[in-house]
Amino acid sequence: MFRLAIDAMGGDGGAPVVIEGVLKAVQQMENVSFVLFGHQDQVDVSLLQHSRIEFIHTEEIITGEDEPAKVIRKKKNSSMMQMAQYVKEGKAHAGISAGNTGALMAAGIFIVGRIQGIERPALAPTLPTIDGNGFLLLDVGANIEAKTEHLVQYAQMGAIYCEKVRGIQNPRIGLVNIGTEAHKGTSLYQETYQKLSESNLNFVGNIEARELLFGVADVCVTDGFSGNQILKATEGTALALFQVIKEELMSSTFSKMGALLLKSKFRAIKNKMDYTEYGGAALFGLNAPMIKAHGSSDKNAFFHAIRQGVFMLENEMVEQIRQSYTKNK
Amino acid sequence: MFRLAIDAMGGDGGAPVVIEGVLKAVQQMENVSFVLFGHQDQVDVSLLQHSRIEFIHTEEIITGEDEPAKVIRKKKNSSMMQMAQYVKEGKAHAGISAGNTGALMAAGIFIVGRIQGIERPALAPTLPTIDGNGFLLLDVGANIEAKTEHLVQYAQMGAIYCEKVRGIQNPRIGLVNIGTEAHKGTSLYQETYQKLSESNLNFVGNIEARELLFGVADVCVTDGFSGNQILKATEGTALALFQVIKEELMSSTFSKMGALLLKSKFRAIKNKMDYTEYGGAALFGLNAPMIKAHGSSDKNAFFHAIRQGVFMLENEMVEQIRQSYTKNK
Repeated sequence: MFRLAIDAMGGDGGAPVVIEGVLKAVQQMENVSFVLFGHQDQVDVSLLQHSRIEFIHTEEIITGEDEPAKVIRKKKNSSMMQMAQYVKEGKAHAGISAGNTGALMAAGIFIVGRIQGIERPALAPTLPTIDGNGFLLLDVGANIEAKTEHLVQYAQMGAIYCEKVRGIQNPRIGLVNIGTEAHKGTSLYQETYQKLSESNLNFVGNIEARELLFGVADVCVTDGFSGNQILKATEGTALALFQVIKEELMSSTFSKMGALLLKSKFRAIKNKMDYTEYGGAALFGLNAPMIKAHGSSDKNAFFHAIRQGVFMLENEMVEQIRQSYTKNK
Repeated sequence: MFRLAIDAMGGDGGAPVVIEGVLKAVQQMENVSFVLFGHQDQVDVSLLQHSRIEFIHTEEIITGEDEPAKVIRKKKNSSMMQMAQYVKEGKAHAGISAGNTGALMAAGIFIVGRIQGIERPALAPTLPTIDGNGFLLLDVGANIEAKTEHLVQYAQMGAIYCEKVRGIQNPRIGLVNIGTEAHKGTSLYQETYQKLSESNLNFVGNIEARELLFGVADVCVTDGFSGNQILKATEGTALALFQVIKEELMSSTFSKMGALLLKSKFRAIKNKMDYTEYGGAALFGLNAPMIKAHGSSDKNAFFHAIRQGVFMLENEMVEQIRQSYTKNK
């Protein structure tokens, strides 16, 4: 039986969405129990009457405005910090929140703690590709001043995740760089290229951000600063395009008719590019799985994040990283 | 009369596309003359019979595989290097190429040369926004190890371009960062935020890559490494989405009918997001305008790059930067 600690207060949809996601998960997964942390005024406890769901009231709430550096000391009694504390103490095996990403990273790093030997954890979402397979992008912001050894560890952890959790044999590792040749990029990237070439990973070389969604690699390694920008540029471009498309198609009766004919196709497109299907962004390198569900999660997205956490537990992701890192040393 | 030096050998479409673009420009702009550089076997000279067009045969051709660091010395007689040499010697007022971006940057920096006081030139394309106004993104790769003073100069040069060439009053300057608060990002970004806040520019603060296409700033400042990745992630996402949309809409007779009804709307969407309308990517900070036309330029895109060069000359962009920089010192 795996026990998941859930921050019920995070995410744009608040506790109701989290609860729906948990209820879906408790029905579908028999080997999982939950402990939810949240403010009793915002959580409808009557919905949580289930033998595998426990609820714990927490006074404080972390908002999007809270500074990650301060929450650890100043909001100890928040749902998110209590959730992390439970994981640290081994009362839960993994933690999930749709709240403040920076605060969750801080909770992961300073409360749950790093695997010994892992220098910097990485935040790793899986993004969609046009072939429907998706790819792991890391780091997208856990560590914004990365060094070569960090990037190499990201590649190793990403490979383990793809192999063990996603079931991809010999996953292709790419380094997201500003050109394909070995000498491209800053010295950080040149050195990382060298190290990855010498590693036992299936390194496919530098890849450009232009190619990411076309499925050229299973694990795309980047430093947290660039990775964050790449992620946001990708999201923003998709949002902008969908908005322009919507505006144009709704601009006349005639085009509305056309759009109506294509409704199912547009849904198919949306589903194809819906990265909440792949779960949330996991923090790799911690002593337990910690997952950031998307802020805009609906119940299904939150459910996928839970499922991802369970997969990581079932496949002993943390233990695999620990062993692999000891071996590689 | 402005004289433009044109590398006829660059771009996916080769000399024929460049020639078409030049012919369109020579018809529409009476105050411009051209000198084209290219290999006589690939340029149909019979098309260039015009009093304001000169053709000069050049033996060598720079390809996409040429290393920028080497072309300056090793391919002196190429169309691109000869074009730059003409600009340097004052025989032409500006230069345009759709060829190898790295080689063109090298030609700009080492042959045409920097404006005194400008530490690093910046490569600055204008990207589309959903409101149709577009924004300038710089640097996208001329300088991949940027310092604070470089970023501040990018902001200054971008503001001058927007004001003088694009006619935007008091252009909004944004710093592309991984969060909106002043303390976000690396020390490079924190310091730049500070400097821009203290400057006389209309600094609107940090903006996230997610917001770029929504028109939140007229000039978006970034270091060349991140900027290159942001640009490519944006392009790649748009390409991927359009490909998925096309595949879905062509997947059944019924959806093909719907797509047919929407043909004019899809064209409108494509036009709205077509950044070749705004010209190419200009290199700012050089002694003369040097413009990189898109590699995939058709005749209209190449024409827009020419028009952009003429606007930069008419509005004395280089002189404005020179003066402003002397004043700001």
